[in-house]
Amino acid sequence: MKHSPALAGLIDALRTLPGVGPKSAQRMAFHLLQEGRVGAGALAQALGSALAAVRRCERCRMLTETPLCAICENPRRDGTLLCVVESPADVVAIESSGSYRGRYFVLMGHLSPLDGIGPEQLGIRDLEALLAAGGPRELILATNPTVEGEATAHFLSDIARRHGVAATRIAHGVPIGGELEYVDGGTLAHALAGRQSIS
Amino acid sequence: MKHSPALAGLIDALRTLPGVGPKSAQRMAFHLLQEGRVGAGALAQALGSALAAVRRCERCRMLTETPLCAICENPRRDGTLLCVVESPADVVAIESSGSYRGRYFVLMGHLSPLDGIGPEQLGIRDLEALLAAGGPRELILATNPTVEGEATAHFLSDIARRHGVAATRIAHGVPIGGELEYVDGGTLAHALAGRQSIS
Repeated sequence: MKHSPALAGLIDALRTLPGVGPKSAQRMAFHLLQEGRVGAGALAQALGSALAAVRRCERCRMLTETPLCAICENPRRDGTLLCVVESPADVVAIESSGSYRGRYFVLMGHLSPLDGIGPEQLGIRDLEALLAAGGPRELILATNPTVEGEATAHFLSDIARRHGVAATRIAHGVPIGGELEYVDGGTLAHALAGRQSIS
Repeated sequence: MKHSPALAGLIDALRTLPGVGPKSAQRMAFHLLQEGRVGAGALAQALGSALAAVRRCERCRMLTETPLCAICENPRRDGTLLCVVESPADVVAIESSGSYRGRYFVLMGHLSPLDGIGPEQLGIRDLEALLAAGGPRELILATNPTVEGEATAHFLSDIARRHGVAATRIAHGVPIGGELEYVDGGTLAHALAGRQSIS
C-alpha cells in the first residue's frame, strides 16, 4: 500500500534514526499523527532548538551549548588525566559509573579509512595541541574493544609517546555481575591474558 | 550526568515515540546531533509538513492528505464489504496481504471506558451513518484479538444487526494477544478467508 507523500516523507525521515526499521518508523509516524500530535509538534521544535543550540566543546569535542562543556569548565576535574572515548554516549556512561574525575576527549568516531575517517575527522590535531600544552600526564584510551577501536587506541598511544605522555588502555575482561558461561571466547581470552595476582 | 537544556529537551521529546526508552532516546539524540544533522533537519521538516497535511479521511477516518483516502476514492473497491480496524497500521497490514478488495473503517482505538474512550471517540456515529446509507452488506470486524478488541467487535456486531447488516469476525488464525500490525500477510489472508458469522 502506497502512503501519501507527507506520510511517506515522515516515515523515511524517522528511518534515519539509529535502530529504527521500516515497521517501527511506520508505527512511530502513525502514533505521531494520531494520539501523539502534541508530542510531534514538541519533537519538531526540540529538534530545531537542539540543532541551533548544541555544538561541540572547543576543548574536548563533547556536545554542549556553551563554548566549553560542563566538565571542561569544572576546575575540580583532574587535568592530568585525559580519557579518550569514541562518542558522547561513552562520556555519559563513564560519568554515571562515578569512578573518574579527569577530563575527556571525544573523537566522535574511530579510524576507518574505508569510510574516509582519518585523524583529521577525529580532531587528532586538537588532541595533540592539548598534549603539547602540557596538562595531561596520562592518556586513558577508552575506545570500544572492536577492531577499529583497538586500531584507534594503538594509533593514539603512538601520539602520546611522542609527547612524553603515558598511554593506558581500559581493562578488558569478564563484566562484573555477568556469568562466565555466557561470555564470548574473545573476552575470556582477554580476561585470562590480563589476569592479575591476588596478594 | 546532567545534559544541557536543548539536548535534554530533545531526549525527552524522542522518548514520547512508541518503543523508545531513555537509552534509545539518548542514542538517537546523539546520532541526530553528530553525523545525522542533515537527517535531523529533514525530520523536523517532515514532522511539520505531515502535521499540516495529514488528516482523517471523511468517510473511513484513515490518515490521508485528501478529503477522501485513496481506498475510499477507488471505484473498483467493493462497497458492500466494510472492514473495521483499530488503526491505520492495520489497514496497511491487511492491504499488503492482498486478500481484501472491500472498504475500511478505522476506529483509531478500541472501546476503553477507563481511558474515557467510548463510541463517540471511535466515530461510531459515522460508522452508523455509513451502514444506514445502505452500501455495506457485511461488516467485517477486524479489531485486535485482545479483550478490548473483542468487546469492541461485540459492540459493533450489535450495531450491524440493528442496521440489518451481517457482522463477521476475522478468524482466529491471528495469534491471541498479538497485534494485527505485526502479523504476516499469509496469516492475515487465512484470517480473512475463515471469517465466521456472529449470531
